[in-house]
Amino acid sequence: MSVVKVLGISGSLRRASFNSAALRAAKELAPEGVEVTIYEGLREIPPYDDDLRTGKGYPASVQAFRAAIKAADAVLISSPEYNYSISGVLKNAIDWASRPPEQPFDGKPIAIMGASGGVLGTARAQYDLRKMAVFLNSHVLNKPEVMIAQAASKFDAEGRLTDETTRGLIAQQLGALRDWTLRLKR
Amino acid sequence: MSVVKVLGISGSLRRASFNSAALRAAKELAPEGVEVTIYEGLREIPPYDDDLRTGKGYPASVQAFRAAIKAADAVLISSPEYNYSISGVLKNAIDWASRPPEQPFDGKPIAIMGASGGVLGTARAQYDLRKMAVFLNSHVLNKPEVMIAQAASKFDAEGRLTDETTRGLIAQQLGALRDWTLRLKR
Amino acid sequence: MSVVKVLGISGSLRRASFNSAALRAAKELAPEGVEVTIYEGLREIPPYDDDLRTGKGYPASVQAFRAAIKAADAVLISSPEYNYSISGVLKNAIDWASRPPEQPFDGKPIAIMGASGGVLGTARAQYDLRKMAVFLNSHVLNKPEVMIAQAASKFDAEGRLTDETTRGLIAQQLGALRDWTLRLKR
Amino acid sequence: MSVVKVLGISGSLRRASFNSAALRAAKELAPEGVEVTIYEGLREIPPYDDDLRTGKGYPASVQAFRAAIKAADAVLISSPEYNYSISGVLKNAIDWASRPPEQPFDGKPIAIMGASGGVLGTARAQYDLRKMAVFLNSHVLNKPEVMIAQAASKFDAEGRLTDETTRGLIAQQLGALRDWTLRLKR
Repeated sequence: MSVVKVLGISGSLRRASFNSAALRAAKELAPEGVEVTIYEGLREIPPYDDDLRTGKGYPASVQAFRAAIKAADAVLISSPEYNYSISGVLKNAIDWASRPPEQPFDGKPIAIMGASGGVLGTARAQYDLRKMAVFLNSHVLNKPEVMIAQAASKFDAEGRLTDETTRGLIAQQLGALRDWTLRLKR
Repeated sequence: MSVVKVLGISGSLRRASFNSAALRAAKELAPEGVEVTIYEGLREIPPYDDDLRTGKGYPASVQAFRAAIKAADAVLISSPEYNYSISGVLKNAIDWASRPPEQPFDGKPIAIMGASGGVLGTARAQYDLRKMAVFLNSHVLNKPEVMIAQAASKFDAEGRLTDETTRGLIAQQLGALRDWTLRLKR
Repeated sequence: MSVVKVLGISGSLRRASFNSAALRAAKELAPEGVEVTIYEGLREIPPYDDDLRTGKGYPASVQAFRAAIKAADAVLISSPEYNYSISGVLKNAIDWASRPPEQPFDGKPIAIMGASGGVLGTARAQYDLRKMAVFLNSHVLNKPEVMIAQAASKFDAEGRLTDETTRGLIAQQLGALRDWTLRLKR
Repeated sequence: MSVVKVLGISGSLRRASFNSAALRAAKELAPEGVEVTIYEGLREIPPYDDDLRTGKGYPASVQAFRAAIKAADAVLISSPEYNYSISGVLKNAIDWASRPPEQPFDGKPIAIMGASGGVLGTARAQYDLRKMAVFLNSHVLNKPEVMIAQAASKFDAEGRLTDETTRGLIAQQLGALRDWTLRLKR
């Protein structure tokens, strides 16, 4: 594996989302040996209904999401914290992704980040996501944890991450995710 | 308040959902002074997008959901456990409900139940929901906790709850929710 | 109930503990109708051993702790966050307190605060404690949540809380705990 | 590494503890390439007090615990669930172990089991422990999860695990821990 292909997934659909902006920063900041692609199709994923899955089968939007996860070497998830957990939009997408026959998160290395307007930087949401990863049998990177607090002060009006400390932290996390992925795969 | 009006919300869209069936059982088993109505519109709620909220405003499906919560004296939530948390469908609905100007869960008494095929009966999901309720400033009933494990053995083919112990537990929970609601409102 | 008697419990044994200092601030800041007493005996509570409980019975240090909780109208817990949860010292004391015949936390109103050197202010520990309170059947105040981050900058060398915002927040929490206690008891 | 040395840690001090009994079963059931040693010294570990650590230094009981973790290739933790979390006794021991200069859990592979009298088999406690492991930078085995419910029916009067399904599950977990340890170390 010469380059670790990382799929970035944002839990927010909002155009000016700080979490989507943080993923764009990750793409830009990716260190050597890491390539970040951002998944853009969460909006099309319908509400999970198991009758749909067992009837017509997976919708095309879900098939595409599952295939993208499967094809990636690792996943980087950035979710807003709504109601002290990850967004329902992201949870719904994970619910679709987690079903048989092939569960694309199985064995997948994952890193978690998140941005919020408040001071906790999505901390409460991130541990819920880590618990979900136990079910999914994903391998979540422990450190560094990336919790971007008071996001409005760290991105400019165009959604570019300007805070140098956070930029360094994201680059560091991507390097750690690369090493973790290589360690688990070799 | 002569009768406590309880709004039942199921986290599953599946026709033969055990969680929806548990709510139908709750409606049937409601003790004196409790009336359970089941909310049927979660399927229509779109993926949460804050641009939609701040643009066109709340979709009609969301307005209806918010109004139903507001009009209820208490809420009874029954969610499947997917990926060790509540369903994305339910989380997405809560994300819409939790936004300004009026947050309809504010101060609302809530009871939680859940049914699963496995042995834990949605335990992992229920504590996530309790954490969400702190943000929402809802008042979640402590006991009895209703975790319906191995659900396939407790409902018949028509989705009727046949397990007497579970029927008794649900009736007991509704009585406790009634008392908790009256205690908080007087 | 003319005055709501609040028992303050610190999860730290360290002399210069910020959490103990926050409780002393709470005692000083208590609004009308609230009286805070700080429990000082956690150091004497031995490691929980059920053979001890069912043999010789509760040690004197445990009996005193249980009696103090029982006698209080409400409890205010301030714990450091160690390993992303409450301190083992506090957990051990709660383990002793939670056993039969009379469980003193049953029905007790509780408020939670915490101070940490980092930016999260014990957030991760506080939700664990809230989950414990479900078992204990305590009624935890939802808001305001008091998470004192970067504590070293908010207390002076004598352990006096100097940060005005935090002082106001603690006073507000005590007022809310008083109202919550009266609401549950009347 | 020809044999993976696993340190077993029980969260209970009770002589007839099901969790200690489960560790003895693990020792007996260890598959090829795994050797389980049970740590016996938790009772001697005093309540965590940072003044003690920074004053006289680590007590001998704590030094021994830290050294045992460091010397092990992997750790197997079996804790009762008290108040919906791990025991205070175990938490206190972890609090001591987690402090500088060398943090012995750093990078350590860990597996979690637990036994309870109820139906959840310590599920609630296990996810708290997994969250602690993020701080500790330990690598917790995802599967199989070992939750021994209704423990009184699965052990005989001498504390021997008699339930064949559970025996198989423990052996399977130890094999998975061995493989996980080797995968992380190579």
